[in-house]
Amino acid sequence: MCELLAMSANTPTDLCFSFTGLTRRGGDTGPHRDGWGVAFYEGKGVRAFHESGASASSRIAEVVQTHPIKSEVAVCHIRQANVGSVCLANTHPFIRELWGRYWTFAHNGQLKTFQPQSGFYEPVGSTDSEALFCDLLNQLRASDSREADLDTLVALLVARAADYARQGVCNLLLTNGDWLFTFCTTKMASITRRAPFGPARLKDADVTVDFEAETTPNDVVSVIVTEPLTTDERWDLYQPGEWRLWRLGEVIRRGRQSITD
Amino acid sequence: MCELLAMSANTPTDLCFSFTGLTRRGGDTGPHRDGWGVAFYEGKGVRAFHESGASASSRIAEVVQTHPIKSEVAVCHIRQANVGSVCLANTHPFIRELWGRYWTFAHNGQLKTFQPQSGFYEPVGSTDSEALFCDLLNQLRASDSREADLDTLVALLVARAADYARQGVCNLLLTNGDWLFTFCTTKMASITRRAPFGPARLKDADVTVDFEAETTPNDVVSVIVTEPLTTDERWDLYQPGEWRLWRLGEVIRRGRQSITD
Repeated sequence: MCELLAMSANTPTDLCFSFTGLTRRGGDTGPHRDGWGVAFYEGKGVRAFHESGASASSRIAEVVQTHPIKSEVAVCHIRQANVGSVCLANTHPFIRELWGRYWTFAHNGQLKTFQPQSGFYEPVGSTDSEALFCDLLNQLRASDSREADLDTLVALLVARAADYARQGVCNLLLTNGDWLFTFCTTKMASITRRAPFGPARLKDADVTVDFEAETTPNDVVSVIVTEPLTTDERWDLYQPGEWRLWRLGEVIRRGRQSITD
Repeated sequence: MCELLAMSANTPTDLCFSFTGLTRRGGDTGPHRDGWGVAFYEGKGVRAFHESGASASSRIAEVVQTHPIKSEVAVCHIRQANVGSVCLANTHPFIRELWGRYWTFAHNGQLKTFQPQSGFYEPVGSTDSEALFCDLLNQLRASDSREADLDTLVALLVARAADYARQGVCNLLLTNGDWLFTFCTTKMASITRRAPFGPARLKDADVTVDFEAETTPNDVVSVIVTEPLTTDERWDLYQPGEWRLWRLGEVIRRGRQSITD
């Protein structure tokens, strides 16, 4: 399986603290040594780092841990391969352009019987995750919802995610750089940090941060993960079938969908 | 304007030496301080590094200079902005998926009057370069040449590139990870290094490499640039309208096209 991490913030914020915790699980405190990737949005632009090896021993991951890259939306994944070999083409997050924006996707879980319809977007690698992402984008494009309002678009995303979840495990992160859509089948949790800020300690590394010293009073920064990263904060657990749509650090839509047949 | 660098090799090879020379020109020995990017293929997968600042003073560029990332095809760009603001979305190289492969594009020049046709691929940023790339992919897709042989595909690429070149300056690099297409309007040069290997000295940094110590006798590594990177080697200059198609370090097709009306 894999682990997921995302951030939504109302001001450009670095991911160094959370990324440090997550990447320890890529071969040190956890078994997810089959690749890692992270995508950072800066406006409509996105830059990503991908590697098919273990994040815990990666020099490039070390730079991302210590060099603050400030972003309002970021998506990160560490991989323990099940479907698809260990290679760069199978390393999340996956990125495609749709309607003049970059869409970024990361997935935890497995859809053993998933049969995507053919369409414009095609997987480059051999994971079920990338096939699912392409299927989702093909269906969005076919739905002709480019000019749709956010509620219509979200209803489409929820319906698709629930359909995938009925075929297996589908914890997913999806963003177009504006909003961040998160869907839970089995495990997901979030935390929203805002004033008054306090300290936090990582579970996977001997690292403590004092967010008070790193922030301004107006900052709102939310972190969404498959497994909580800190030991001394209260994470808000998603229920199976629960989804939350984030923008600028806040939940702007939420709901829960049946994912049993 | 900008500068371009690409590599085609018959064995996974790092770009550290050439990248070190090029990135000095991004704010140190040259004025191209408005962003830099590099894409490395590993099989069908690609990983890229992008930044909207100067490469000469970038910590991430420094890591790419010193951490060997081995690839058979790589494409690199340093930017001096003309069309489009300085931001991540306007930073080359641009990447899109077509027919289940990642296609990567970088461009030097300016097409002042270029009017792309609308199509599936859309620019995210505001450069003429990304608009040109999207137009090219839209025309490839419309040509239904997915199963075409290489000569048919190359004829399409040459016709499109020559058409763009008639509208301005269009030195371009395009790769799908298998082959590397290069087209010269005003300036491009290449060098192919093979046994017996010798030393080389960068023009922009006090760095010399002994390729003999870095290679095996069967290695063939070609580097394509807009401005030669070394002082003690003989670079093979392209003529205006000349194109070369590279695979595994060798030119596999070449020609010259009229680019005057």
